[in-house]
Amino acid sequence: MKFTDYLDPQEGFMESCRDYEGSGAVLFGAPMDYTASFRPGSRMAPRAIRQISRVLEEHSLVLERDLKELKFFDGGDLDLPPGNVNKSLELIEKAWELLLQEGKLPMMIGGDHLVTLPGVRAAFRHHPQMVLLQLDAHADLRQHYLGEERTHASVIYRIIRETGIKDVYQLGIRSATGEELNFARENTHFYPYDFLAPLKDVRERIFRRPVYITLDIDLVDPAYAPGTGTPEPGGCTSREILEAIYLLKDLQVVGFDLVEVLPAFDQAQATSLLAAKIIREALLAFSKRKGSNGR
Amino acid sequence: MKFTDYLDPQEGFMESCRDYEGSGAVLFGAPMDYTASFRPGSRMAPRAIRQISRVLEEHSLVLERDLKELKFFDGGDLDLPPGNVNKSLELIEKAWELLLQEGKLPMMIGGDHLVTLPGVRAAFRHHPQMVLLQLDAHADLRQHYLGEERTHASVIYRIIRETGIKDVYQLGIRSATGEELNFARENTHFYPYDFLAPLKDVRERIFRRPVYITLDIDLVDPAYAPGTGTPEPGGCTSREILEAIYLLKDLQVVGFDLVEVLPAFDQAQATSLLAAKIIREALLAFSKRKGSNGR
Amino acid sequence: MKFTDYLDPQEGFMESCRDYEGSGAVLFGAPMDYTASFRPGSRMAPRAIRQISRVLEEHSLVLERDLKELKFFDGGDLDLPPGNVNKSLELIEKAWELLLQEGKLPMMIGGDHLVTLPGVRAAFRHHPQMVLLQLDAHADLRQHYLGEERTHASVIYRIIRETGIKDVYQLGIRSATGEELNFARENTHFYPYDFLAPLKDVRERIFRRPVYITLDIDLVDPAYAPGTGTPEPGGCTSREILEAIYLLKDLQVVGFDLVEVLPAFDQAQATSLLAAKIIREALLAFSKRKGSNGR
Amino acid sequence: MKFTDYLDPQEGFMESCRDYEGSGAVLFGAPMDYTASFRPGSRMAPRAIRQISRVLEEHSLVLERDLKELKFFDGGDLDLPPGNVNKSLELIEKAWELLLQEGKLPMMIGGDHLVTLPGVRAAFRHHPQMVLLQLDAHADLRQHYLGEERTHASVIYRIIRETGIKDVYQLGIRSATGEELNFARENTHFYPYDFLAPLKDVRERIFRRPVYITLDIDLVDPAYAPGTGTPEPGGCTSREILEAIYLLKDLQVVGFDLVEVLPAFDQAQATSLLAAKIIREALLAFSKRKGSNGR
Amino acid sequence: MKFTDYLDPQEGFMESCRDYEGSGAVLFGAPMDYTASFRPGSRMAPRAIRQISRVLEEHSLVLERDLKELKFFDGGDLDLPPGNVNKSLELIEKAWELLLQEGKLPMMIGGDHLVTLPGVRAAFRHHPQMVLLQLDAHADLRQHYLGEERTHASVIYRIIRETGIKDVYQLGIRSATGEELNFARENTHFYPYDFLAPLKDVRERIFRRPVYITLDIDLVDPAYAPGTGTPEPGGCTSREILEAIYLLKDLQVVGFDLVEVLPAFDQAQATSLLAAKIIREALLAFSKRKGSNGR
Amino acid sequence: MKFTDYLDPQEGFMESCRDYEGSGAVLFGAPMDYTASFRPGSRMAPRAIRQISRVLEEHSLVLERDLKELKFFDGGDLDLPPGNVNKSLELIEKAWELLLQEGKLPMMIGGDHLVTLPGVRAAFRHHPQMVLLQLDAHADLRQHYLGEERTHASVIYRIIRETGIKDVYQLGIRSATGEELNFARENTHFYPYDFLAPLKDVRERIFRRPVYITLDIDLVDPAYAPGTGTPEPGGCTSREILEAIYLLKDLQVVGFDLVEVLPAFDQAQATSLLAAKIIREALLAFSKRKGSNGR
Repeated sequence: MKFTDYLDPQEGFMESCRDYEGSGAVLFGAPMDYTASFRPGSRMAPRAIRQISRVLEEHSLVLERDLKELKFFDGGDLDLPPGNVNKSLELIEKAWELLLQEGKLPMMIGGDHLVTLPGVRAAFRHHPQMVLLQLDAHADLRQHYLGEERTHASVIYRIIRETGIKDVYQLGIRSATGEELNFARENTHFYPYDFLAPLKDVRERIFRRPVYITLDIDLVDPAYAPGTGTPEPGGCTSREILEAIYLLKDLQVVGFDLVEVLPAFDQAQATSLLAAKIIREALLAFSKRKGSNGR
Repeated sequence: MKFTDYLDPQEGFMESCRDYEGSGAVLFGAPMDYTASFRPGSRMAPRAIRQISRVLEEHSLVLERDLKELKFFDGGDLDLPPGNVNKSLELIEKAWELLLQEGKLPMMIGGDHLVTLPGVRAAFRHHPQMVLLQLDAHADLRQHYLGEERTHASVIYRIIRETGIKDVYQLGIRSATGEELNFARENTHFYPYDFLAPLKDVRERIFRRPVYITLDIDLVDPAYAPGTGTPEPGGCTSREILEAIYLLKDLQVVGFDLVEVLPAFDQAQATSLLAAKIIREALLAFSKRKGSNGR
Repeated sequence: MKFTDYLDPQEGFMESCRDYEGSGAVLFGAPMDYTASFRPGSRMAPRAIRQISRVLEEHSLVLERDLKELKFFDGGDLDLPPGNVNKSLELIEKAWELLLQEGKLPMMIGGDHLVTLPGVRAAFRHHPQMVLLQLDAHADLRQHYLGEERTHASVIYRIIRETGIKDVYQLGIRSATGEELNFARENTHFYPYDFLAPLKDVRERIFRRPVYITLDIDLVDPAYAPGTGTPEPGGCTSREILEAIYLLKDLQVVGFDLVEVLPAFDQAQATSLLAAKIIREALLAFSKRKGSNGR
Repeated sequence: MKFTDYLDPQEGFMESCRDYEGSGAVLFGAPMDYTASFRPGSRMAPRAIRQISRVLEEHSLVLERDLKELKFFDGGDLDLPPGNVNKSLELIEKAWELLLQEGKLPMMIGGDHLVTLPGVRAAFRHHPQMVLLQLDAHADLRQHYLGEERTHASVIYRIIRETGIKDVYQLGIRSATGEELNFARENTHFYPYDFLAPLKDVRERIFRRPVYITLDIDLVDPAYAPGTGTPEPGGCTSREILEAIYLLKDLQVVGFDLVEVLPAFDQAQATSLLAAKIIREALLAFSKRKGSNGR
Repeated sequence: MKFTDYLDPQEGFMESCRDYEGSGAVLFGAPMDYTASFRPGSRMAPRAIRQISRVLEEHSLVLERDLKELKFFDGGDLDLPPGNVNKSLELIEKAWELLLQEGKLPMMIGGDHLVTLPGVRAAFRHHPQMVLLQLDAHADLRQHYLGEERTHASVIYRIIRETGIKDVYQLGIRSATGEELNFARENTHFYPYDFLAPLKDVRERIFRRPVYITLDIDLVDPAYAPGTGTPEPGGCTSREILEAIYLLKDLQVVGFDLVEVLPAFDQAQATSLLAAKIIREALLAFSKRKGSNGR
Repeated sequence: MKFTDYLDPQEGFMESCRDYEGSGAVLFGAPMDYTASFRPGSRMAPRAIRQISRVLEEHSLVLERDLKELKFFDGGDLDLPPGNVNKSLELIEKAWELLLQEGKLPMMIGGDHLVTLPGVRAAFRHHPQMVLLQLDAHADLRQHYLGEERTHASVIYRIIRETGIKDVYQLGIRSATGEELNFARENTHFYPYDFLAPLKDVRERIFRRPVYITLDIDLVDPAYAPGTGTPEPGGCTSREILEAIYLLKDLQVVGFDLVEVLPAFDQAQATSLLAAKIIREALLAFSKRKGSNGR
């Protein structure tokens, strides 16, 4: 035996591979949090989630599938210029573009919610029939936020304005301004509070269409996910968010992101761990279908 | 002396005003925690709650009302003499007296639960038909606690003994001694464990009467409210405590307090944030009725 | 009065006694955590649980019983050799043997889950009809873990192999490998996910038989029990775990352990406090029956 | 062997005994912190210091003495009425009185600095030639503090006024108001900032007289002692405070206290551990002399 | 627009006044941290420093002066657009411009070190003879940092390039790349490691000239200042940084900033407290001279 | 550009390479902490140190050398069997053996101090003239510790007994039992307390001989290194420990380890960061000489 045979390799999300070419889903971080209004630091989330992922098993008791059956790539985080919002958004969009061109399933870990803007822009170009499904505590429909147009609090408004996407489903929203509410009533499919019951309906309505899923971890109550930038009391449990993934498992997912995990406020790493489990289940639920047509 | 003479000015709760005269509800802190038996430090709560309140929106999706429609005053904390229980109680009672005389709705942030004693004393003088509604994990009915009569663990007993108030409703209680239980059975309306179902009944019974609501944050499970002085496993969720506020919204509330938040043990500020949301909803729920008769 | 009359004795679990001979139940710590795979430190749990226990009342509102009515001994932790797994297991087994010989009800606080192995070995020798009831997030059925046979991740497998015990009930399991699942299907009574409904059935089936209950705190969701070695999102609430104790109260319990509490990650001590409350209720629920035949 | 032979006894300061009668020095806690102006919680200090003390060896390399050679009693904390300042002060004074009458060396752990008032009152009655030696960051000479006379910020002023003690040495002071400075210049031996050089002089001047040493842990810089109620940047190192104990070792110490340790803000327990080491060295340094006349 | 139009009013630094017109020094926060490379969050620093400042006395034992003798304004933080680096820099520069025009002494709290760029740009326009004195662990002389020109790691390089300032004194530097070293040797007065001895020399050389002092808190060792964005072991003590302020007290200071305090990593608030004490001493040391010529 | 061109690789100690064959020094973790007597968890240290290392520059201002000039390998941690002390020690020894055979300079990160035993065993076999240089707060000379021979508290005793090494230099020791002292006086070169002055002498005496350096981070005061298993107040500063590395830079180092870093108690990561800086300087100081003769 050689020295290196004694080593325990430690990198990447659990069971990820290093073979980009042969992979189906591609996991990557978008470590950008400049527009956070309260607590920045979600740029640290992808690393924290990767590291804690090893506490989990590769097997899902619910989905009855194992990460060992997949080939997914985790190469780390995008290399973004610190403090430069627009250039960072461009780089993220370029990364999505490349992944979509090569038939990969992009699975992005934020960063703050603004990283969803370039993801949806690229995915919508590739899939003009695409539906955006947002699971979130906040509507994120501000037209301006403290004078800025492109912020984590206005990302869904920007997506609608910049892409013209018609079908945005907003579920679980429990915080919004009056202006956002008015906008939502006219421009989105808006389901405040409980999201599991409406999700079943929504699932039926979007079943045949490509779907981009964006999940803001603050959907979950701060008891289960304390490490986030703008926590909002009254959210769901960790079981309920997992249940949502199981509900969505047969959809034709073309992009997925999980945003707003904040390691610096994540005592005992509960939020990062929940995020890692969501990602494991999302990998097993969404890349399974894809695997059948050649990935 | 006027009410504001007692104040130690600080930065306010979100959307509070500095115009005392024109205000309806008045939010103030009572930073006293000398009789805490386990972990002192709730004196820091009012500041922590004010500071974190700015993470929330001013708008309530459930109540469909906005803090911008109210005028409520937040002048900071009462200036209390450190370590002097009786003088502090006197000062708090005087503050309540002035507020009630001037037709304000007092909304007090503790401090430990003992601060409710002077609040109820003053309110009961003004409203002899008043009902006391206690939402709490503990009965707080000890006759003595470690040799002392006036402590956070005996506050409801003292209120009954000192004011003669007849109708005390105790909901959500999940910890008490045998002696307290015996006392409760004879002297209070006692509803242990779940409080939402009985609260609907209680609401009907007290609908026409003035109500003082005292809310000990340890009603909520330590998962949702870790920052408190004497946590007790097995409590409610953040949704349930908010639901209680919504249930009570048409009552004739003449005084409100929220006590026992402990910032030093409040990881990621979840407890202070929940308290801030409760206060926002309470402001919107309870000062709305008042607004109709001139406030 | 003498000087010592002014002192407040502080040791042991609340209301425990120092009279070993006269006691019924015996509470003790097994501070061993060497085989932890992720976060060691559960050796600190017994001390943390004892210390925080004093925040609770001695009285149980649900069981309507009081610790003052019991005589249970708490003499501290076993003195184990650091880093020596096999010798530690021997010492723990010897301690159980002595307690069982003297008719005590052993109630052990871990340590990691491996401490259950010697407990069950001794108890099964004394009670060959014994049933093992495991409440846990993980199956703990690995045949080897990172090359070792005796680890916290393989403890139930070792128990089955080393003792030949037939009836192992596994409830609440939400994480396992495929191999563990296959083993469980053939060798244990396996109830994944929700445990309260199946527990009612199980209770009927094991009612007349001696029962050893092992409770891994990670059964509970990390929101309620963040301080544990291998947290797993999607668990139960603190109410549900307490409900399980109440369900089991008429069983013939011959051994009990609570394992995997990890104080170093236990913000605001919520996990230790929950463990202390579980132990209080377990003392009241399980030593009550014993009291009737002379203890 | 019996079951209890396997146990590791855990209580009390390391190497303390349970034989009050036969002991020389007596260690006890005075868990009172009601007059803290910023962060309460020093009532938790005695327990935290006892618990962490076991990390240390019993042997002092500097003093070349071992705790095993001493017999000192640690019976826990005084049982004080929560929130009652005056009654607590009376009880503490009574405890000191009893210890002094029985020829013990009292070594008290606070609590906030106000606990020194009853200690000095009792000790000064027994030793009218007594000198008070204060090592502290703050002068504690306020005549009133937020309207109160007896607070941790006015304790030395109260001692001078209430006992008439003439020789108060204040060393290390780095924070005071202008009024306190004026008072100090006329009424105390005042040595601001560095204390080691003046301590050598002071030592010569008080060599033949009985000494009460009061040590406020905030003398030490917050880097070394973060867990304290009113931290003040610019203090000494842990080596320097230990050096002070070594310098004082031949004095005729008749009372000792260490106050203002605050466990809730004591990350990684550094402050409690430093306090435990100071107490170990103080026990070895000050009860040594006492040993010569029969203890 | 006036200066105060830029302010987001908050509660002030201890003894600050609300009378902008009558004030000499003006304290304000620049809550921008978008270019942080490791840990963002210094935008929270001004609030944290204000809040903790109240633990300190107003009196300086060393400077023998009291904040009560000054009139300085603290109106809170500048209202900056989240994530917009260039617009934030413009706003900060405008604020400095207004203060300098009105003869105020600007004292700015960062934010990350990039906020010094607009401060020096404005001050250098007003004082072309101005010297820049940097106390810092890092040289901050990168030409680009991760592709960006304007970042906290390149701020001194940008200042030199954008303003043409000739005399930049860099003291205490203990971390730099080879490229930065080469640049420093040719373009700045570079004093690595210990700064107190060289500071005495520097003081003589710059005595007659206007000085802008920028202090990066990471000059101080992480033991004393753990809460900072890019900590570097091997720094100075809290005493030494205070000593630097005392050394500089007779200089003609025309601008001062303190940057890179990071509350989210500031256990027990030691860093914020040290920053508050530095600012108190700086106010007393630098606005004193100014007071003599009419302020 | 390809997708992978946008990624920022994140693994390994900063500037480490993945080319084992071509490397000179080899950094690796030995994640074993089973014999910790107080706080386990140092198994997490290698990962924490790697991750934080990226905050530092690659350049050393003192040594005037850059990591870019070296080729050193970091392949992660050894894969050790959890809880199995002897097998883990064997594996570590085998790893050292392989490295020494291949002419590498082993640089090991613990784990608790026991990992030094196999390192010295292997190195002493290869270098029978070898000197062991221990920088530590504790003597680690216990013959047994809680009944065990091979523990972190007896590692130096075991090394002497198992290898027969003659020249063990112990510097900085500030805690030991009487028995350890007696043993040290007869068997080691023992320099308690300050280590910098004696280190200069020692350096002269061992200049021509192969040296194994073992550094226990608890040499440093808990203020600078709070994250460690058995902290001991009164240690050195971060500057002093770095100074020691600089003093030793011309020695013929044949093995190096840094042990007892404990991430779970390492607030704001100060200890891991200090460890990373020590390792950077050690790499630059010790592999430099080696580079000249062919590595």
